[in-house]
Amino acid sequence: MKYNFLVSRIYDGGIHRHRIQIIRKALSEEKRVSTKTSAADLVTETDHLVEGLIISELQKRFPSHRFIAEESAAAGAKCVLTPSPTWIVDPIDGTCNFVHRFPTVAVSIGFAVNQELEFGVIYHCTEERLYTGRRGRGAFCNGQRLRVSGETDISKALVLTEIGPKRDPATLKLFLSNMERLLHAKAHGVRVIGSSTLALCHLASGAADAYYQFGLHCWDLAAATVIIREAGGIVMDTSGGPLDLMSCRVVAAGTREMATLIAQALQTINYGRDDEK
Amino acid sequence: MKYNFLVSRIYDGGIHRHRIQIIRKALSEEKRVSTKTSAADLVTETDHLVEGLIISELQKRFPSHRFIAEESAAAGAKCVLTPSPTWIVDPIDGTCNFVHRFPTVAVSIGFAVNQELEFGVIYHCTEERLYTGRRGRGAFCNGQRLRVSGETDISKALVLTEIGPKRDPATLKLFLSNMERLLHAKAHGVRVIGSSTLALCHLASGAADAYYQFGLHCWDLAAATVIIREAGGIVMDTSGGPLDLMSCRVVAAGTREMATLIAQALQTINYGRDDEK
Repeated sequence: MKYNFLVSRIYDGGIHRHRIQIIRKALSEEKRVSTKTSAADLVTETDHLVEGLIISELQKRFPSHRFIAEESAAAGAKCVLTPSPTWIVDPIDGTCNFVHRFPTVAVSIGFAVNQELEFGVIYHCTEERLYTGRRGRGAFCNGQRLRVSGETDISKALVLTEIGPKRDPATLKLFLSNMERLLHAKAHGVRVIGSSTLALCHLASGAADAYYQFGLHCWDLAAATVIIREAGGIVMDTSGGPLDLMSCRVVAAGTREMATLIAQALQTINYGRDDEK
Repeated sequence: MKYNFLVSRIYDGGIHRHRIQIIRKALSEEKRVSTKTSAADLVTETDHLVEGLIISELQKRFPSHRFIAEESAAAGAKCVLTPSPTWIVDPIDGTCNFVHRFPTVAVSIGFAVNQELEFGVIYHCTEERLYTGRRGRGAFCNGQRLRVSGETDISKALVLTEIGPKRDPATLKLFLSNMERLLHAKAHGVRVIGSSTLALCHLASGAADAYYQFGLHCWDLAAATVIIREAGGIVMDTSGGPLDLMSCRVVAAGTREMATLIAQALQTINYGRDDEK
């Protein structure tokens, strides 16, 4: 593997540590908040600061690499995954939680070459949990191997989802109707924790059986996808077909049977594509 | 205060430690699960074991005291709060999370005398956070003073709720319709973490602005109510009137304005009363 040195540098937390201190400090402070697509789609100075630091540090080391990152995309940068080595960065996943000091907040960094996800790193900023996954080499949390749940029956499932940034009445109706369908199917429970990447990490660790969402982005999914697959799980499109990282929708589960059942239960909420914005 | 010795004994974690080890160990194991009121209302051997240990230890020290506890109530014991000193115990709050090894699980112990809540202790079993509140003496998490949020505007609020154990279509419609009303009111977000007591602790710490639920019990509320009030918050009935610990419904918020707005937005879901079951 060509990227050994880079992976070990990230795995030992070196690239993360400074960013985490910034986020932890900011968690205890009042924040100046701006909105993006809706009143619920928030961004803070810390999102910008951390994203800038991650990209500038990586750019110094890998000047030819490309970047797809949440706040750069919001500022108009194109989200196109080319065959070039590409870092896919969410500086603060769970910004709404972050603004409220609700302690479920993560940094997510994925890395793709030839449009294939090579590794992912997700750090839970307050609980000091580092989730890592590398293609063909397994997934870990603080060094402990991750394994997904083997559950195939929705009526025994704990299912995770997130509300998504669009809050118009039609979108909310679909969001709630999807939740209703899973509860009618007698899922043990549905949880909404406010961080897609950490919800996906719970799935990878076997603490939940399925995850679905409409309205998440490639930077929410890139790192988590490697981690889930390396923990033995399935990440697919809500149509039941292969995952499309740019399609703003996903179903993930410990088993293909569970992912397929969830995908069949869902109505589509159209959020467009990351690479057409 | 008559109960100083008792409070300090609990505050230093002495009564908790043994129980926590049992719960932590069980979190990593397969569990034999039974259902109570519905397929989503779960109980494990660990719930029974921990409740038995807490009650037997307290009974040895305080033979005249009374107990209201989740699994004893499920087995038919009456839930009546008399003026006698009474311990109100939830051995594992978040049993569905516990069954799935989803790491949001707590032990909750409240104490009332003359039908007034005197103190409450809630322990987050995986994150080693001990929340404590004592009437007139403040609320703390691991020794750090808790303060609620001062937010009064729903459109800037992070709101917490739980689904509740009833899953018939009419109850689910009301649950989802209440969530829809808050999202229409442009709440920043709604979170469902699967533990009423830990959600209420987030509220006490200022990490969320409001909490509401239909279908929770006095053992979910007793300890948390003292902690929230001592952190400066409001705990009231969903009608807008004073809290009734036995009414299986609650609104809590950092401010009276917020609690009142949430109460006004909600449709009632009837779960009966704990003291009439």
